[in-house]
Amino acid sequence: MSAAATPAPGTFAFLWESLLPVGRDPRTGGYRRFSWTPADLDCRAWFEAAARHRQLRLDPDRNGNLWAWWDVPVAGEAGRAGGVFPPSRRSAGGSGGSSPRASSAGEAGRAIATGSHLDSVPDGGAYDGPLGVVSAFAAIDELRAEGFTPARPIAVAAFAEEEGARFGVACLGSRLLTGAIDPDRARALEDGDGITLAAAMQAAGQDPGPIGRDEDLIGRLGCYVELHIEQGRALADLDAAVGIAEGIWPHGRWRLDFAGQADHAGTAALAGRRDPMIPYAATVLAARQAAVERGARATIGKVTAEPGAANAVCSAVRAWLDVRAPDGPTLEAMVDQILAVAGQESDANRVGLTARQESFSPEVEFDLPLADRLAAALAARGIEAPSLPTGAGHDAGVLAARLPTAMLFVRNPTGVSHSPAEHAGDADCTAGVTALAAVLRDLAG
Amino acid sequence: MSAAATPAPGTFAFLWESLLPVGRDPRTGGYRRFSWTPADLDCRAWFEAAARHRQLRLDPDRNGNLWAWWDVPVAGEAGRAGGVFPPSRRSAGGSGGSSPRASSAGEAGRAIATGSHLDSVPDGGAYDGPLGVVSAFAAIDELRAEGFTPARPIAVAAFAEEEGARFGVACLGSRLLTGAIDPDRARALEDGDGITLAAAMQAAGQDPGPIGRDEDLIGRLGCYVELHIEQGRALADLDAAVGIAEGIWPHGRWRLDFAGQADHAGTAALAGRRDPMIPYAATVLAARQAAVERGARATIGKVTAEPGAANAVCSAVRAWLDVRAPDGPTLEAMVDQILAVAGQESDANRVGLTARQESFSPEVEFDLPLADRLAAALAARGIEAPSLPTGAGHDAGVLAARLPTAMLFVRNPTGVSHSPAEHAGDADCTAGVTALAAVLRDLAG
Repeated sequence: MSAAATPAPGTFAFLWESLLPVGRDPRTGGYRRFSWTPADLDCRAWFEAAARHRQLRLDPDRNGNLWAWWDVPVAGEAGRAGGVFPPSRRSAGGSGGSSPRASSAGEAGRAIATGSHLDSVPDGGAYDGPLGVVSAFAAIDELRAEGFTPARPIAVAAFAEEEGARFGVACLGSRLLTGAIDPDRARALEDGDGITLAAAMQAAGQDPGPIGRDEDLIGRLGCYVELHIEQGRALADLDAAVGIAEGIWPHGRWRLDFAGQADHAGTAALAGRRDPMIPYAATVLAARQAAVERGARATIGKVTAEPGAANAVCSAVRAWLDVRAPDGPTLEAMVDQILAVAGQESDANRVGLTARQESFSPEVEFDLPLADRLAAALAARGIEAPSLPTGAGHDAGVLAARLPTAMLFVRNPTGVSHSPAEHAGDADCTAGVTALAAVLRDLAG
Repeated sequence: MSAAATPAPGTFAFLWESLLPVGRDPRTGGYRRFSWTPADLDCRAWFEAAARHRQLRLDPDRNGNLWAWWDVPVAGEAGRAGGVFPPSRRSAGGSGGSSPRASSAGEAGRAIATGSHLDSVPDGGAYDGPLGVVSAFAAIDELRAEGFTPARPIAVAAFAEEEGARFGVACLGSRLLTGAIDPDRARALEDGDGITLAAAMQAAGQDPGPIGRDEDLIGRLGCYVELHIEQGRALADLDAAVGIAEGIWPHGRWRLDFAGQADHAGTAALAGRRDPMIPYAATVLAARQAAVERGARATIGKVTAEPGAANAVCSAVRAWLDVRAPDGPTLEAMVDQILAVAGQESDANRVGLTARQESFSPEVEFDLPLADRLAAALAARGIEAPSLPTGAGHDAGVLAARLPTAMLFVRNPTGVSHSPAEHAGDADCTAGVTALAAVLRDLAG
């Protein structure tokens, strides 16, 4: 999204551009919005300001996820879009901790939730996550501008640690909310500096004590529709601005520790070496080969060598293997094949190998009736939105275990993602907001 | 070297153990003595204390190398081992900057220099470097204890940045001294944090302005004999405590930059990826293969991946390739072969490749008459010292371009080097001191 002139407050462009500088690394142009860091706290402050500006009720949950509620107006207030909410509703706004079930939930039905996340991978792009949050606020603006009054509450969410970039578990906020991860395990997760999630939350002023499954909040949600930039080129190839997700490939992350012995690069005879770099390299190529054979994905994008001297055989290599496939059995076969090569090559080099699954997300089929309803709502507005599978994990995939979920994708012409080069055009971003507004109008009307 | 009881001052064990704690990482037991860091300054203070204790004249050169001189006593002082030097000699002690040629140099001939270095690779062992410096002081103690008076000066050196662990150029101190590296290039060398050598020296209180070739100092040196722990298992296999170096294999270091494009590990189709990890892995295996084919060495022990996210294709991989071979043409052929694979695989993956030679040391043949004289001096004391080639670079190899040099190796039973597991037994360390004392007695007598 780019704009020559300064955009007006309350517009998509204003929202978008006010978030752009937060956590951007000036050297690379990429984002480093890691959860519970100063950049993340700035993102949270931005979310709160956007919600307050719209007089949405702020109600962060106890897992570090942010929620902004457009409650159903009480009798006599219908049509007062953007108006003041009754004191009983506003009292919970902005406070942390558990949130009492809104009194209107029973009357008006469960909420239509939308949103995405604000955290990033290292040197990530501007769109992955934030586009869904900004579009949610902008869609509410669009609905209010046309005088729409929701018959069911609409909630905008920003989930914590979706990328897992700091603590290694993707979708951590939604996993905690739905009970998909044990709170004790989550509290003990460590970042690269050995700081636990519990310590990081505490330092950021969020009590890590009450994290974990939140049935009260889940019970208030009727469905979740996440808008996200597409992370491949399918929409570009189909010449469509927006699409609807079919499902998410099963995917997982494995940490591989190759343990050898440091030695002198000049004097240690090859036969006597226990060089962990050799089985590591063989594993990289085996992963690529396994993915090529099955039309799937396998990637090693993070590796460290210890002690890391240019003139020494390293003592240890630690790598993270990311594998995704169209279905579970294919994924399992790939992982078996890759780890078999890693094991054989480690044995051949007298190197120890430990492979540990750090995260796993089974295949997600998004709710078909909900997807059909999205397609119909879009078609009614003249928007054609093809269906797409995706290899990327999302909070929508985690929430799918507990409530109907759906996703809207916005075209990404180059298909590049998790990179500063990730991009969506202004017109496609606007089309995304229009599509999300159409969906919310249909679901909450 | 281990000792149950506290060793007495002035003994090898005391010297050795007083240096042991400096710069040791308590987590790994390895050393992190990087030049011009606090650990390095502690090593320098240790050297100065050891020299002062022996009333050796301290005269650091302008390239950051430390020198402690046992000058030839003036008439009437012969035999006063450990005695006080005349004020005119002592005036230069401990001060930096250029050093006036000692007035005795002309009369007594050029000096017999010995020593080694105190810096380490990351997580290096205790012996690589320090054993030569400690043994030099201990050999002087042994000579003095028997009432030896040198007819030529004896100098103990500790060369700066021998490992190149901080600024990437091995033997930096001896290269500067002999003019083998341009001072401007040296000043601009950067460490991993972007700190230049010039800034690091300045911060440590050493003026980087006058670094560079020092003909005055070289002119005062007659030869250099470096004692060093062996970095392979040759002496263990030959059942000998000490050996004499034949020569140093030619060796060099190349920095490889693979530049691709960051992308999403789940959504980016394999065909569209520009993943630098793939050609990197192929290069690791090609390097091993090239070394196997030629009975040589090729190692990648240092690698970084940017941005280093577990769920993203990385945008760049930077690696350091270390290659060593018995002769220059073999080394050249190996590097050509490895870089050819790196280039082909980079092209196939649409990845950019830059290969830059960071350092190169041609083959060194140590001075044969000097080696023969060492062998004869040792044989006269009943010490059998076989001749060995080595794949490791040393300051002795750099100095060999300007003066006769030789090396003594001390047995390393496991052959492990550049690792905390590096070790020499107490008896072998003592044998090394005895051998070095025999050599100094012969050369300076």
